[in-house]
Amino acid sequence: MTTPPIIALLTDFGLSDTYVGTMKGVMLALCPAARLVDLTHDVQPQNVRQAAYLLATAYRYFPASAVFLVVVDPGVGTARAPMAVETGHGRYVAPDNGVLSYVLAETGGGRACALENPAYRLAETSQTFHGRDIFAPAAAHLAAGVPASAFGPALNTLVALPTPRLAILQGRAEGEVLHIDHFGNVITSIGRLTWDGPGALRFAPRFGVEAGAPETLRAAQCQVLIGGRAIGPVRPTYGAVPPGALIALVGSAGQLEVGINQGHAASALGAAIGDPVTLVWD
Amino acid sequence: MTTPPIIALLTDFGLSDTYVGTMKGVMLALCPAARLVDLTHDVQPQNVRQAAYLLATAYRYFPASAVFLVVVDPGVGTARAPMAVETGHGRYVAPDNGVLSYVLAETGGGRACALENPAYRLAETSQTFHGRDIFAPAAAHLAAGVPASAFGPALNTLVALPTPRLAILQGRAEGEVLHIDHFGNVITSIGRLTWDGPGALRFAPRFGVEAGAPETLRAAQCQVLIGGRAIGPVRPTYGAVPPGALIALVGSAGQLEVGINQGHAASALGAAIGDPVTLVWD
Amino acid sequence: MTTPPIIALLTDFGLSDTYVGTMKGVMLALCPAARLVDLTHDVQPQNVRQAAYLLATAYRYFPASAVFLVVVDPGVGTARAPMAVETGHGRYVAPDNGVLSYVLAETGGGRACALENPAYRLAETSQTFHGRDIFAPAAAHLAAGVPASAFGPALNTLVALPTPRLAILQGRAEGEVLHIDHFGNVITSIGRLTWDGPGALRFAPRFGVEAGAPETLRAAQCQVLIGGRAIGPVRPTYGAVPPGALIALVGSAGQLEVGINQGHAASALGAAIGDPVTLVWD
Repeated sequence: MTTPPIIALLTDFGLSDTYVGTMKGVMLALCPAARLVDLTHDVQPQNVRQAAYLLATAYRYFPASAVFLVVVDPGVGTARAPMAVETGHGRYVAPDNGVLSYVLAETGGGRACALENPAYRLAETSQTFHGRDIFAPAAAHLAAGVPASAFGPALNTLVALPTPRLAILQGRAEGEVLHIDHFGNVITSIGRLTWDGPGALRFAPRFGVEAGAPETLRAAQCQVLIGGRAIGPVRPTYGAVPPGALIALVGSAGQLEVGINQGHAASALGAAIGDPVTLVWD
Repeated sequence: MTTPPIIALLTDFGLSDTYVGTMKGVMLALCPAARLVDLTHDVQPQNVRQAAYLLATAYRYFPASAVFLVVVDPGVGTARAPMAVETGHGRYVAPDNGVLSYVLAETGGGRACALENPAYRLAETSQTFHGRDIFAPAAAHLAAGVPASAFGPALNTLVALPTPRLAILQGRAEGEVLHIDHFGNVITSIGRLTWDGPGALRFAPRFGVEAGAPETLRAAQCQVLIGGRAIGPVRPTYGAVPPGALIALVGSAGQLEVGINQGHAASALGAAIGDPVTLVWD
Repeated sequence: MTTPPIIALLTDFGLSDTYVGTMKGVMLALCPAARLVDLTHDVQPQNVRQAAYLLATAYRYFPASAVFLVVVDPGVGTARAPMAVETGHGRYVAPDNGVLSYVLAETGGGRACALENPAYRLAETSQTFHGRDIFAPAAAHLAAGVPASAFGPALNTLVALPTPRLAILQGRAEGEVLHIDHFGNVITSIGRLTWDGPGALRFAPRFGVEAGAPETLRAAQCQVLIGGRAIGPVRPTYGAVPPGALIALVGSAGQLEVGINQGHAASALGAAIGDPVTLVWD
């Protein structure tokens, strides 16, 4: 059999309405073979930046042929362009509001086209639910084999988000909280860290704009400063500390993370998205 | 390839138990090719009327062959009949408690049969989880090609919900709040409105029982009265007002809606399902 | 067509991150034909026992060939073995922490192998997200036809949870609250009860360790003691009492359950998981 096309969805629509289910109905009507996967629909309403981060942590685990339908769209009904972008890893349908910024930085950009051709929209297009009327049909047509260039003219300059805060200074990196997960783990802009043998961390800033960091850090010397607390050293895994203890570690996306073994670190620290965080290595 | 059958689910079961997943296991065992789509499982517990409204906003976006499994069933284990209904757009499996009322009004009714034939139920039938034991098997058999008439005798009179409140008076329509969505948008019984050129709204009462409304309204003259506030005129899209401002507009299902651009209108207005709302056009 | 393989997921990951969606991307990349079903992702964080109970209520409704991916894993990154277990009803991928205990008691055990072969893991394996890097790939390979024995050496002794509390005494059974569902129904360890004609309950302790119960109880004589309240008799279905009234009944998994018709019993009773509950039959 041929491999069925995959469409992965990321929105701020929640699951308490029929919005997501309706988009799925639209897509299955246009591309019955599509396999639909929810990344999450619990992005904070209109939080484009959080969505951009979440997408960047997930896309590479899907086949390169996957289509991603990303609808976090504070500007629905305004001039921001709906678009499709084909990249070396993934095809994306989203508003041109920066939500693809972090992925495109990793894939080396892509070819973007505006969604203008009415043949690839629903026959009736509302002004309040472009997810259903414009974005979902485009995702389904992409999954069914229509090239993005059929949708409309090329977009040569895309809206870009500012990169997350990450300053490399003498003996430390200053960043910010990017996301708080379901377990209360506090995920930061300081990364990408990888273990390079026991006790040694390689440091390759993910968002690519800062230089000056040492290539390797000694984990045992590192301290994380957040919310008036100093937490360290950086440990390999939650089980390295007793239940209830704060721990600094490398999260599953390679970002510096602060958690509590079997507890909720964000509550204990009073941490919120955007809060400053520092990694000290000397 | 043949188009795989679709089964869309709408319940008040929530997602924190295994109730929904168990129904899916039952359906895939009986109809392995079925594609399962969640409409929502967050209907307020036992709120048949909210479920009826949500279903009515979604069904037409699915292929006409889709099966809808609708289980909001305050009367589980009592005399209300479990049934399957075949219509011109969609096949439905639900308790006969009115939850299909609004859809059947739009599809012009359908052919209903009781779910009595034990061959199309699970071998053991509990008295507390008919979703798993009676409704899910029926949906799967329908999707696999069994006609509703195989399930049991025809039901000639179905339970109907009262239509949502909508009174057309001199220069105004009086309705009620039908639903509050994930973004806090307040969705009303006043509709179905459609834009008929810039500034002009066509008015075709959705629930079909009221006459006397003007065919066309001037959007600039309209005001919405809710919770002691007057909001107007009716705008085309959220972006027409600044972030934080209240706005009246036509929602994605054609109903008059009150929102706040990038904010939560229901909280700001203290609005709840059932609250009165008035559209004034003179 | 051949029946597509099913993978059912049960985790404590919630749905607000991309963790579950990422695991699905991994699985569809390795087994494109797999049908993915969510059992629930709202297990209380790290509550292995609740997960074990929920899995035990659901697995038998899936085809015997289904794969279950169960990741509730307080010990991620520690010595607990990740494993695959093949049984007479279902194949399971989980940490060896007891989460499969109740299912294995019902299936008569199974053949367990450790997940050690790097060929069946992702190329890069983090120390914080074994769900994505180790468990999901194993589930996908199982679904695609790889035998568990390919993953690593047999595990001969598995971690077992203590069975839920259930003591059979003179004229009564003493148990505990196992789960509180979305509707607020309080589900207990006292079971498995089945109706044996009107008014007669058969009693076959589910977790298999207690003897001495009468084979048949007269439902009309039974009282349930919980939170200082006596509730009885045991009724067949919610509709047997008026809306708002407390009721004792046999739940959909065969366990004694206390609910309120169209209400939230756990709130009304102040009941929590682990609370004592007694069924008196004399």
